[in-house]
Order: sequence, then structure tokens, then C-alpha cells
Amino acid sequence: MPPLAVALGDPAGIGPEIAAKAWAARGAHSLHPFFAVGDARSVETVWSGPVVRISDPDEAVSAFERGLPVIQMEDAGPIAPGQPSLEGARCSLDSLELAAGLTRAGISSGLVTGPVSKSQLYAIGFRHPGQTEFVAERCGVARDNVAMMLAGPSLRVVPITTHVPLAQVPSLLTVELLVAKARTTARGLTRNFGIAAPRLAFAGLNPHAGENGAMGREEIDIILPAIAQLREEGIDVTGPFAADAMFHARARQGYDVAMCLYHDQGLIPLKTLHFDEGVNMTLGLPIVRVAPDHGTAFAIAGRDEAIPGAMIAAIKLAATAAEHRARANQ
Amino acid sequence: MPPLAVALGDPAGIGPEIAAKAWAARGAHSLHPFFAVGDARSVETVWSGPVVRISDPDEAVSAFERGLPVIQMEDAGPIAPGQPSLEGARCSLDSLELAAGLTRAGISSGLVTGPVSKSQLYAIGFRHPGQTEFVAERCGVARDNVAMMLAGPSLRVVPITTHVPLAQVPSLLTVELLVAKARTTARGLTRNFGIAAPRLAFAGLNPHAGENGAMGREEIDIILPAIAQLREEGIDVTGPFAADAMFHARARQGYDVAMCLYHDQGLIPLKTLHFDEGVNMTLGLPIVRVAPDHGTAFAIAGRDEAIPGAMIAAIKLAATAAEHRARANQ
Repeated sequence: MPPLAVALGDPAGIGPEIAAKAWAARGAHSLHPFFAVGDARSVETVWSGPVVRISDPDEAVSAFERGLPVIQMEDAGPIAPGQPSLEGARCSLDSLELAAGLTRAGISSGLVTGPVSKSQLYAIGFRHPGQTEFVAERCGVARDNVAMMLAGPSLRVVPITTHVPLAQVPSLLTVELLVAKARTTARGLTRNFGIAAPRLAFAGLNPHAGENGAMGREEIDIILPAIAQLREEGIDVTGPFAADAMFHARARQGYDVAMCLYHDQGLIPLKTLHFDEGVNMTLGLPIVRVAPDHGTAFAIAGRDEAIPGAMIAAIKLAATAAEHRARANQ
Repeated sequence: MPPLAVALGDPAGIGPEIAAKAWAARGAHSLHPFFAVGDARSVETVWSGPVVRISDPDEAVSAFERGLPVIQMEDAGPIAPGQPSLEGARCSLDSLELAAGLTRAGISSGLVTGPVSKSQLYAIGFRHPGQTEFVAERCGVARDNVAMMLAGPSLRVVPITTHVPLAQVPSLLTVELLVAKARTTARGLTRNFGIAAPRLAFAGLNPHAGENGAMGREEIDIILPAIAQLREEGIDVTGPFAADAMFHARARQGYDVAMCLYHDQGLIPLKTLHFDEGVNMTLGLPIVRVAPDHGTAFAIAGRDEAIPGAMIAAIKLAATAAEHRARANQ
């Protein structure tokens, strides 16, 4: 299986540091070989370990033994950890595009993306809400047909709406959207993890899942019809459950993924349980794409304080998914 | 300090069983003496331990050594665990009223309320959303001046709105409401737990707390002005924080209580962490009132399967709060 490609993200954020620390931990975690894509100087500024500049991904596997392999992008301008710049944002976008392209071409077996600064990207004309939508477009997949899954060791969640004001959430929910996201999620769990019949559990939108319409009707008007349709398609779906009662340890045994209706409904339990090791996986793409579920952390960049746990988890998950896909294609 | 009063809740629910199991565990947990208020038969039907019928709360402390003291209410009709009835609902309401009255009179030092069936209570003409509002009215306190606090061993949360559809939450939030709930919460932590300067942390409403207005303006228009006003009053308030990043173990060190804007925002993290031991405490009352944070669980009533952890935690918390109040009044 080819190596994984790790886009370093914003050169002034903690992406370069956690990629380097992940390389340093490659033995302890039995990491599949990977190469970084970005400005090698952003690693060297914050890390004293070995960096191997490569020009061809074919060199990555042998270079991986000696140091962190980096495909060097155009100069990202002056490197100052914690001080984002427009040149740095441009470098992060170019790195993402190249790493995604190499993965689409099969030259890397999976794409791992380091954290970028959305406000800096917007300032250079980036028109997507985030990296997920950019990668989806590059892969030719419509936005509603991808699903953002957040995962930790004991919980997977898919928020069906994401970065929108809470007040807009109820009006965005439709039977069609829930069905599309659940289909993508079910297929994604089979394809990436080999779960033959994934168990999806829907959260309710309202307190106590609405108590039969006493506190909101979205469960009756939208969620139950979506569940009925999905069951007709043969997908194992349960719910809607009272959201506060579905994330404790016993409840988590009952499903493979929780389908949540808004950002914090899924992210609160995930990060309460797995703050330092949460990963973000995009389901519904022709390629594997995973990211550590945290931001650039500019405030601690360059201080050797960044915890690489989520990056390591992302690399492991990408390799697992790539192996499942490779096996299924044999 | 006088004994605590435990209203048994619906006689067909698990309230009688968990009150009896709490009595059985009184030694292991060093529980302050308490007496139950309800139909003794509802205990005897599901539990083989000793029950001591008393007619006067003064007998409770000596009876507590010999068995579960119960002040017998009028006959609740036929007792059938798991089969709620209107007579049972009437008994649960009468028990609540008597236990609350004894506590207001200082004959019991704190009120613990077992789970009731809201739909059964509504059927007999109960006009309050729940026991909390009933007790508040009996104590002569306006609804906005009490706060429902949910607590577990490592987290306290106050949901500012509770049993309303999620779609209504944004329109219910006002600076005045947030300020009123935060004042009640701060005073309540001082009064019930002796925390001299409680640290309150506000959650944001929107993903990432709105990112400076990019995803919703409630943080800017409502939460920040409320925080500013509370600080002027000398209350230690921080936030608004991204809700998904404020409930992991390190983050919880930073505050004594999380002020949440809707039911599931507070209840998801609380129950994810402390499903079997969460308690519900009403702040802002002249009396101590605590309840186990779960329902009647009719489905398992009478099977000896109910876990008394939350009832035991509620009794302990009520005693702790009553002691703090007694000390402050000396």
C-alpha cells in the first residue's frame, strides 16, 4: 500500500509540529509510512529532528526510515510560529491541493490534512466553508453526499448540519438531507471499516426527543420518516433517542455511529470523552480523508507544547481505512 | 439537624425501590437520617426489607435505625409496579406537597423528590411543567428566579432554558434571563456548598461560540452583555466558550458551574459522564430540594433492577446543602 500524504496545514500553526511528532512516534504506534506536503522550513523551525526533502512520493517510503519526508512547496514566505500570513495561507492551500491530487491519483493511499486558518484562507479568496468541502469538490462529490464523521476510541458521531447558527438548524433539516447523510454514513462505515451492517442511531432534536410532539415536532415530521425510509432500504437505523441519554458508556454499545442534528450535539459528547484524540473523517469521497479534530492553535505554536495524539490517531485511521478499501478492491 | 424528607414519587415507578435501596445503603454511604412520604405498600411490594410506618416526623430518627420510615399517605389504590394509575399520580402529588410543606416548616431539613409521571400528573389536572415549578410556587418564588442545576461528581450544569422545543430557544434568551439565572446560581453555590466566590462559565449558543458573529449573533447580542452586567455585580463569570470544548477533564477545572443555554447542551455532557449518579437541585428556593436525575422507569419497576446511585447521591447532596445552610444561619 502506498504511503499516506499529510498536508501540513498552516505553516504558522501546530500542524508541522504534530506531523513531526507523529513521525517521531512512528515506531511506538506502528504508523504506516507517510510523507508531508508543505514547507519543510515550517517543520525545521519548531522541531530539531531529521527532515528529508523529497521531490517524488516514490522516495517517501525509504526516506521515512531516516526522517520526516517532506515534499517542498513553494516558499511560504517568512516562517513565524503563531503569526499567520497570507503567504502561509496560500502555502497551506497549495499543499492541500497537491496532497489531495496525489491521493486521487493513487500515489498516496490516503489524505491527512493538518489544521488551516479559515479566516486567512477566506482572505486569499478561498470560497469553501472548510477543507472538507474543498476536497469534496475536487473529487466531484456534491456537498450533501459527503458526511463529516468525528471519531474517538469509544464514539463516532456524524453531525448532519455543521457550521451554521443554531437558530437555522431546525429549518435546514429535511427528510432528504437526513436520508442522504445516513446513506453516506452507512456506506462509509462499510467501506472504511469493514462493518458489514453498520448500526446508526439518530438523536432527537428536542429535549427528551420531543416526548411524542409535546416539545417540538421535528422527531415526528422529519426524523421518523427518514428512519422509516432508511429501514426500507435495509439500513439498520434506530431512534430518535433523547440526546442526553445516548452517549454514556452502556448506551454507546448500542450503535456504531450516532447521527446528530447539529454541530454541538455531536461534538459535545465526542470532545467531552476524547478531547485530545478526536479525528475528523470525510465519508462519501472516492479517497480516504482524515484530519485531527482541532485547529491551528496559533497561541501555542512553536512552544513544543502541541499534543500529537489527534494527528497520530488520524494517520492510524487513514491507514486502517485505506487497508479496508484496498482489501475490498482485491 | 432534622431528618430529610423523601417523597417517593409515582408508586408504580422505581422511586419506592430506590428509596428503600438507599436506606439499605445508609451505613456504607453514611447517609443522614431520612423518612419517606408516600404509600408504604409501594415499597413493600418491591422490597423485602423492613418498613416502619410513622405518623410523626419526630419518630423518624429513631425509626431509621430499624427500617425505612414512611409517613403513610392516603391509599394509592391498587399497587402494580410499572402500571401507573391516576390514583397513584394523586398519591405522588400529595406526597410531594406534604414533604415540601414539612421542609418549609423546618420539620425536615431538606426535600428529596422521587420520579413522577408528568403525563399522569397532567391527567389529574397538574398545571406546572414539573415538580421544580410546583415547589417554587409553594415557596412563593418566581419561576425565572429559580435555576435547575444538574450535578455529578465532576460537573455541575445549569440549563437556562429547559423543556422547550429547540427551535424556540434562541427567541427565549434575553440578557435579563441570563442575568437572573446566573445570580441565582452564584448565590445557590455559596448558600448550598459554601463556595465563597463561585466561578460561572457560560457556553456559547452557536458552533465555536459563533466565531465573532460569523455563525450567529447571540453571543455578541445577549451573552456578552449579560456577562458584563454580572461582572459589574462582582460575580466571577467567564465565556462564552465553544460548548464542545468546555466539558473535557482539563476544561472542567476552570469553573464551578457551566451555564448552558438549552437542555441538551448541559444534559449531554452531564449524562455522558455521570449517567447513573446525576442529581437535579433547585437553586433559588428557601428550602433545599434535590432529586435523582432520572424518570420513573416504569419498564423496569418491580424487577429489582433499579440502580439507587442517583437517589443516594441526591440524599447526600441534600444533607450537604442543609448542613451548609444550618452553619450559615448559626
